[in-house]
Amino acid sequence: MYGIIATWRMALEGITEADKMLKEGSSAGDAIETAVKAVEDFEYYKSVGYGGLPNEEMEVELDAAFMDGTTLDLGCVGGIKDFANPVSIARKLSKEPVNNFLVGAGAEKYAHRHGFERKNMLTERAKIHYHNRVVETSANTELKPYSGHDTVGMVCLDCEGNMTSATSTSGLFMKHPGRVGDSPVSGSGFYVDSNVGGASATGLGEDVMKGCVSYEIVRLMKDGMHPQQACEKAVKEFDADLKRRRNKAGDMSLIAMNNKGEWGCATNIEGFSFAVATENEDPTVYLVKFDEDGKQYFEVASKEWMDNYMKTRTAPLVRK
Amino acid sequence: MYGIIATWRMALEGITEADKMLKEGSSAGDAIETAVKAVEDFEYYKSVGYGGLPNEEMEVELDAAFMDGTTLDLGCVGGIKDFANPVSIARKLSKEPVNNFLVGAGAEKYAHRHGFERKNMLTERAKIHYHNRVVETSANTELKPYSGHDTVGMVCLDCEGNMTSATSTSGLFMKHPGRVGDSPVSGSGFYVDSNVGGASATGLGEDVMKGCVSYEIVRLMKDGMHPQQACEKAVKEFDADLKRRRNKAGDMSLIAMNNKGEWGCATNIEGFSFAVATENEDPTVYLVKFDEDGKQYFEVASKEWMDNYMKTRTAPLVRK
Repeated sequence: MYGIIATWRMALEGITEADKMLKEGSSAGDAIETAVKAVEDFEYYKSVGYGGLPNEEMEVELDAAFMDGTTLDLGCVGGIKDFANPVSIARKLSKEPVNNFLVGAGAEKYAHRHGFERKNMLTERAKIHYHNRVVETSANTELKPYSGHDTVGMVCLDCEGNMTSATSTSGLFMKHPGRVGDSPVSGSGFYVDSNVGGASATGLGEDVMKGCVSYEIVRLMKDGMHPQQACEKAVKEFDADLKRRRNKAGDMSLIAMNNKGEWGCATNIEGFSFAVATENEDPTVYLVKFDEDGKQYFEVASKEWMDNYMKTRTAPLVRK
Repeated sequence: MYGIIATWRMALEGITEADKMLKEGSSAGDAIETAVKAVEDFEYYKSVGYGGLPNEEMEVELDAAFMDGTTLDLGCVGGIKDFANPVSIARKLSKEPVNNFLVGAGAEKYAHRHGFERKNMLTERAKIHYHNRVVETSANTELKPYSGHDTVGMVCLDCEGNMTSATSTSGLFMKHPGRVGDSPVSGSGFYVDSNVGGASATGLGEDVMKGCVSYEIVRLMKDGMHPQQACEKAVKEFDADLKRRRNKAGDMSLIAMNNKGEWGCATNIEGFSFAVATENEDPTVYLVKFDEDGKQYFEVASKEWMDNYMKTRTAPLVRK
């Protein structure tokens, strides 16, 4: 069995490529890196890699992680600027004996020394988004923080039974310089153990880190739960716990896969989508819906939804 | 009931102060911040705050965290240079609505804007250590990485039943610039939930992060385990797991306290010490020992041990 699952529709092209690689016997490390890079490279996704939205100083700062579920090797970068593929830097870091988590200027120095591609990650579209936000804010309309903190997070299983997890994000739009979210934080943004399975998160990193939600899901799977049960239990209980303690809970969407290729997803928001491919299932985008009783179910994305998705992502931007 | 537990003998003066504060009704937040600051300020401790050992570029880069177990608010700094009290910056960050984890230059900018004390954290003693290491390395003697990655990590309970956890460290001696360890990573270096208890770690951060060991201990306590049982189970099993997968396990020492003021500690190294004070127990330093069967037990540090400890810490350094 092999498979890959990822947060958001934007992962579809990447996991389609990974699916082919896995079928041909590629490792979970190579497949997941290829899949995340595809998302990083596509400029119309404004929350990951090239085209990601900048911080309050108009700098694109990126977080990423890579974890090998067999050796537990992990590599993480936080607040790195102007490198094309943070996930590849994270993967390289995962093979170092120590110094596996590098941030800021130090991470850039490492990436430079190891020959990773430098790239100005700030696109014209991102500049228009920045400009428009500044105009909106100074016009004193109600400030609407960009709620799409759309990290790409993935879990992958290869034919040999090895599993990986990886994340990549430009983080919160208009964040403070140096802000790091959950994506490079082990147990929060990602976690994987090839003996069990893996999980990865997207949402408000500041809240995901309060509950180590990815680790919690893996632990529930270790206790025998199906990934779907594990995701639902972890997200539901932690969402309720945050609301009890803080009267609110940040957005939180988790995906998981176990080492049999079974998968699951749970979210506390409307409009979450995710993408899956396994030996038994062609690459598919699912939309998460809620029935009248608030029970979550999945619907395969229609052709209309898919067309509309890409149309809105690539639509010309109006400078305010 | 109130109490505080901390990694290493170096925390004794700090927790003694915190113990008095807790007795007089101070909050767990104020008490733990005071205790950690005492360690940060003492220049003879070469792994925390002022006097901490520098990275490979002779810069002291500091990591710290603060977590409130009642609200789950958390604040973290990674790779921050030249501020006197990283733990206070972390605590301040824990009260921000977002942007709770800041690294590198961004963290320094935040600290500067909020008026935290700038201080050149590189001492003359630290420079001698750096110089000596360079000499040792170039003399091509076997490289002995500084194995004392002696993070101060604490868990505190106040009379109101509120709990906190906090960490502070200069991290690995001779680390790469921008290297972040487990200390500012939620669930790895620290975790606390006032409904249950808290835990904190010192050791090789790169390995602690592979297992989210602090979160795991809190979760075991939530399942009903005594802190001592929880620490032993988590450390023993994870140490064995790392050795199975990687043929080795980094140093790892964990302390924990539950919301009844009961405490525990477990380690996989020789020579670990910790400090505890509770309503029922005056500030005490314990040494962890192992019997012939490898079973761990605690011994109260003798006056001779204590005298010798401070003598060796403050002894003049010879420049090689």
